[in-house]
Amino acid sequence: MSQEHDTQTAFMEATYRALCTHGYADLTMQDIADETDKSKAALHYHFDGKDDLFREFLAYLHEGFTEKIADHPDAPPVTQLVALVRRVLDPVDDESDQQFNTAFMEIKAQAPYRDGYRTVLRRFDTDLRTEIADLVRAAIEDGQYPEDTDSEEVAEHVLTYIHGTWTRAAAVGADVVAMREHLVDDLLDMLVEDANVSADVETAVESAPSDAAGSE
Amino acid sequence: MSQEHDTQTAFMEATYRALCTHGYADLTMQDIADETDKSKAALHYHFDGKDDLFREFLAYLHEGFTEKIADHPDAPPVTQLVALVRRVLDPVDDESDQQFNTAFMEIKAQAPYRDGYRTVLRRFDTDLRTEIADLVRAAIEDGQYPEDTDSEEVAEHVLTYIHGTWTRAAAVGADVVAMREHLVDDLLDMLVEDANVSADVETAVESAPSDAAGSE
Repeated sequence: MSQEHDTQTAFMEATYRALCTHGYADLTMQDIADETDKSKAALHYHFDGKDDLFREFLAYLHEGFTEKIADHPDAPPVTQLVALVRRVLDPVDDESDQQFNTAFMEIKAQAPYRDGYRTVLRRFDTDLRTEIADLVRAAIEDGQYPEDTDSEEVAEHVLTYIHGTWTRAAAVGADVVAMREHLVDDLLDMLVEDANVSADVETAVESAPSDAAGSE
Repeated sequence: MSQEHDTQTAFMEATYRALCTHGYADLTMQDIADETDKSKAALHYHFDGKDDLFREFLAYLHEGFTEKIADHPDAPPVTQLVALVRRVLDPVDDESDQQFNTAFMEIKAQAPYRDGYRTVLRRFDTDLRTEIADLVRAAIEDGQYPEDTDSEEVAEHVLTYIHGTWTRAAAVGADVVAMREHLVDDLLDMLVEDANVSADVETAVESAPSDAAGSE
């Protein structure tokens, strides 16, 4: 790792911490510099203002997100899909995580006003949709989902629902786990009748069809 | 109407216009006063700062929202439900409407930081959920939806999906109509097999079941 790369990473980590403390709207370059051992001048040397820094920060978050949505190739596709939904909609029990989620919603709300924000946010959307659609297609090929399942439509639906869960959690403090498990139930309800799939990655192999497909 | 009430309404309308122009984050009391024939001092006489004004503004929006979600008691419940979803997720073709929707998302993102915002935002959620659950229950009573349909669960699901649609429209410019019609299809897919329900309020009476329930 170069020193330049280390400095960049330090600034990105400082931005994360500063966002948790101050939120996006009130955040200044000074607040971010205060989270490092560098000066505000050093921050301005690297970034051409708050918008420029945040375009970089979104790209940095996107890198982490890509790792988060990577699949578990050992489990059946539907089990992987459920695990993906659960990872993406992991309830935040840590206060700073919760503050970060709220700040990220502020950033999404700023997307139409700030050059380049939307471009990176679209990458989150596209990557997640592609990953979901790929898993649905794999589930169809494996005979877990019916042949006439529209993988793109399912991916769009799941993506919209995930965004809704994030928004309601931040705006009205709605229960992430309840909303998430409703989505998981929907994904399991789509299984063909005799599919042998567990919703749990660990027990993927042992489960009986009746456990997986729900009571319907 | 009292003069006091007229002034209040004028301030609320001015806030709407100012939000469309400036967004929430950068909005000042001066920006709002500039949209009226009153002074900034007059605005400060009525409201104890921006947060106080916005609590009032959210309550004003909530009043309009209540009218928007009111039902059409002549149509069958599922037709009313579809009409409700279409009204709430009406695509904004006017630029200022679009700017307002984005500003409203900024306000939702501010909810955890500002006293009282969440309380009013929860009322939007509760009212919409109650309206949806009531229509689903009426549809079950009318035999349009199966008896084992969980009206509260459907209402939660629809509500989360609606929030997701709003968020994706603002954050990544996703297609509101495509997302909305996907939800409408889901609501029609839930119909019992021989239900005679149109998705269109105007043609509610004439439609054939095959038109309403989709191709499945």
